[in-house]
Amino acid sequence: MIGIFDSGLGGLSALKEARRLMPHEDIVYFGDTGRVPYGTRSRETIIKYSLQDMNFLASHNIDAVMVACGTASSNALDTLREAYPSIPIIGVIDAGARAAAKATKNNIIGIAGTPSTIGSRAFETKLREINGDFEMISAACPLFVPLVENGFISPDDEITKLAAKTHLKNIIEAGADTLILGCTHYPIIAGAISRVIPYATLINVGAAAAEELREIMASRGRVDTNRIGKVQYFVSDEPQGFERIASIFLGEEITDSVARIDIEKY
Amino acid sequence: MIGIFDSGLGGLSALKEARRLMPHEDIVYFGDTGRVPYGTRSRETIIKYSLQDMNFLASHNIDAVMVACGTASSNALDTLREAYPSIPIIGVIDAGARAAAKATKNNIIGIAGTPSTIGSRAFETKLREINGDFEMISAACPLFVPLVENGFISPDDEITKLAAKTHLKNIIEAGADTLILGCTHYPIIAGAISRVIPYATLINVGAAAAEELREIMASRGRVDTNRIGKVQYFVSDEPQGFERIASIFLGEEITDSVARIDIEKY
Repeated sequence: MIGIFDSGLGGLSALKEARRLMPHEDIVYFGDTGRVPYGTRSRETIIKYSLQDMNFLASHNIDAVMVACGTASSNALDTLREAYPSIPIIGVIDAGARAAAKATKNNIIGIAGTPSTIGSRAFETKLREINGDFEMISAACPLFVPLVENGFISPDDEITKLAAKTHLKNIIEAGADTLILGCTHYPIIAGAISRVIPYATLINVGAAAAEELREIMASRGRVDTNRIGKVQYFVSDEPQGFERIASIFLGEEITDSVARIDIEKY
Repeated sequence: MIGIFDSGLGGLSALKEARRLMPHEDIVYFGDTGRVPYGTRSRETIIKYSLQDMNFLASHNIDAVMVACGTASSNALDTLREAYPSIPIIGVIDAGARAAAKATKNNIIGIAGTPSTIGSRAFETKLREINGDFEMISAACPLFVPLVENGFISPDDEITKLAAKTHLKNIIEAGADTLILGCTHYPIIAGAISRVIPYATLINVGAAAAEELREIMASRGRVDTNRIGKVQYFVSDEPQGFERIASIFLGEEITDSVARIDIEKY
């Protein structure tokens, strides 16, 4: 069983990729909808919340965990690994950076992210570890999350294209051939983003993390069987509205049930 | 002394209006930045949070309170008044509806608000009480708050004008002569909104509530003296970044200090 947590529901786009790669695996998803967003919280608070999220997932019989929240990935991964040394934990930042490093040919990498993720320079730090020669241009894209959550997701949506053109101006001008979509919300508007930077390879960080999880599970002998895995969804505020938002990220209607938990107890 | 609370910092636009009308009054402001936004929470949670906010304000020597959060105004006003029967409490919804009712000539009123406020139909209910003949057209404007908070506030900003045109389409087509800016963030982009609906009177709900507070204070003999009131700011998460956002809403740099409190204790 794989555990995935996110500060909200964006991580469902990563769950979708994990399902695609490992349809036989059971997955438990926790979205901390009662305390979203993490990006504006203090580091101390982010670590506390992430540890509670991890504690909740660990109360299930999980083999590995994906941290689908960029803020949690860049602030809390070490703490989580110390607390759970026997559980492999993959963060979207590291996995996304590795995938971008593989994809680039001209070594110019654009990074699109939330203001908090961009401010943390977490992708730059990881990319610099991989290759000191990368030229990196980062762009805070504060309008992308509200555009996604409110359904402005058509590849031809005028507002989304204008927002992408505005946010990504420096990356486009620098000629990046690879663009990290550094937030699990962003793959939903990859169509409109592609319209304004058509020559770049877009890196879906949730898909990159799912790919690494697949390798870990395979190395443990957990390969494709004929069964279809079950998905359990948990959130920390009222699940009201969950179906609408979830269907945006999953690209299909939700059939499994969703339950509310009191995350402060973990 | 006047108390003002909001789920975040948007209420500072209402504080600005209160300062303009009552420069001699002391004001204590609480922004619940650690638990923002309220609009996505359950009614039970909104009431609990609002009562804690009110408890905190009441720990100061306040004469009256403005609830600058639309979500709290539409869900918690009765509870707050029951808990504090001796303190006048003005909500932005009621005050805004009354101001719009006075302003309209053709009785066609547009209501722009957050998805949560629009979903609650709180303005419609109040307007209907005032005059059963009003034609009301409401529009959820989910992009306005992120546009404001990320500085897309110029009257000529292309994204903000396009967002306004998209969000307010039905209101423009209905020929409303009055538009309620049903969220304390929206006055900041009144310039761009005016560009797409130039013939409408825009109702600043924070200003309307401040005007009602001024009348209450005056009726208590608290009229203009020669002193300049003091403002105290409190928030529930790290004040980091407070100055930047606050200066957007206040239209000037903050000189007073801001303190963090643990709102869960109230």
